[in-house]
Amino acid sequence: MKIYEMRQAPNPRRVRMYLAEKGLSSEVEFVQLDLQKGENLTPEFKARNPMKKVPVLELDDGTCIAETQAICRYFEELHPEQPLMGRTPQEKALIEQWVRWLDFYFFIPTGMAFQHGSGYFKDRMKCFPEWGAECRTQAEKFFGFLNSQLEGKEYLVGDSFSIADINALCTVDFNKVNALAIAGDQVHLKAWHERISARPSARA
Amino acid sequence: MKIYEMRQAPNPRRVRMYLAEKGLSSEVEFVQLDLQKGENLTPEFKARNPMKKVPVLELDDGTCIAETQAICRYFEELHPEQPLMGRTPQEKALIEQWVRWLDFYFFIPTGMAFQHGSGYFKDRMKCFPEWGAECRTQAEKFFGFLNSQLEGKEYLVGDSFSIADINALCTVDFNKVNALAIAGDQVHLKAWHERISARPSARA
Repeated sequence: MKIYEMRQAPNPRRVRMYLAEKGLSSEVEFVQLDLQKGENLTPEFKARNPMKKVPVLELDDGTCIAETQAICRYFEELHPEQPLMGRTPQEKALIEQWVRWLDFYFFIPTGMAFQHGSGYFKDRMKCFPEWGAECRTQAEKFFGFLNSQLEGKEYLVGDSFSIADINALCTVDFNKVNALAIAGDQVHLKAWHERISARPSARA
Repeated sequence: MKIYEMRQAPNPRRVRMYLAEKGLSSEVEFVQLDLQKGENLTPEFKARNPMKKVPVLELDDGTCIAETQAICRYFEELHPEQPLMGRTPQEKALIEQWVRWLDFYFFIPTGMAFQHGSGYFKDRMKCFPEWGAECRTQAEKFFGFLNSQLEGKEYLVGDSFSIADINALCTVDFNKVNALAIAGDQVHLKAWHERISARPSARA
């Protein structure tokens, strides 16, 4: 089984951290692509993922699964213990709610702030710097929301570490490309960030 | 159990269609909010969903679950048959991949084209009309992608009706607000659209 990725990119880190938490990292061969050089734009890669994004999981029979959360879902279904997507219907739903909040209101603004602000992919997309600036503001606001939600809590959802913590950590850290970091008075977010960053999986 | 929604909005339709397919519509009381009047901006509603979006499922114990896919996940876990999110790990992952493709590359551009283009929520958001126009182009392209993917296929993923078909149908239909519709030569998309629209759940 192979995963096509770029090590520095935030979504591949989410998958590596998930696999490390599940003890599954060694089951996968990682293949590096250089996105800025456009190694994800070839017809071969487009056949694996028409959206031309990483990561992509390729099973031994050639079936390809794109999208971070879908790749993790595949492993979660095959290896339900220890669960990182919840145990009960309510836990599963609340973790999914949080993953989607993080994706829609934090990860996407973070990525758009970077792409529209930096012009990193300007050879293949139209950049709207003003929209990038607005997205940066949205991402910055989400730091404050996370801080308020983490008051008195060890983990983002319920009382267990979950895939929502992975998503949040990787997105907070990736915001260095937008020159955004945890503010001095965001003490709950800071404490959570230190706890989660101390897990060995955070360096996967 | 209550669902807070606005009938005309596309995400609530996704949930209603899902519940109708599962035979669960009568388990829920639907409460209407007028989003343009800002009935979702009250402190009471923000306590249910800090993102101030509909739909929100409120359980009898007061627990609130936001996000369309998370609400459907809750019901899917409680009522696994007939599955609309896949049976095997691979099916589940591929349906999730598609739901995310639809959300990220079709639903979000569709919504942004509408919001930034029309100014529908201009009392509460900064509009970037040029970005809206770019998003409209992206949504229009996705119609073509859907058409190519549906060639020779009855459903979007595998050989069963799934939540991905629900997402795609509701997003295609909502694009009337962007004056986008299935083109005359998109024959595979058109045939699929007629098949899915003929299901009683499409009128839920």
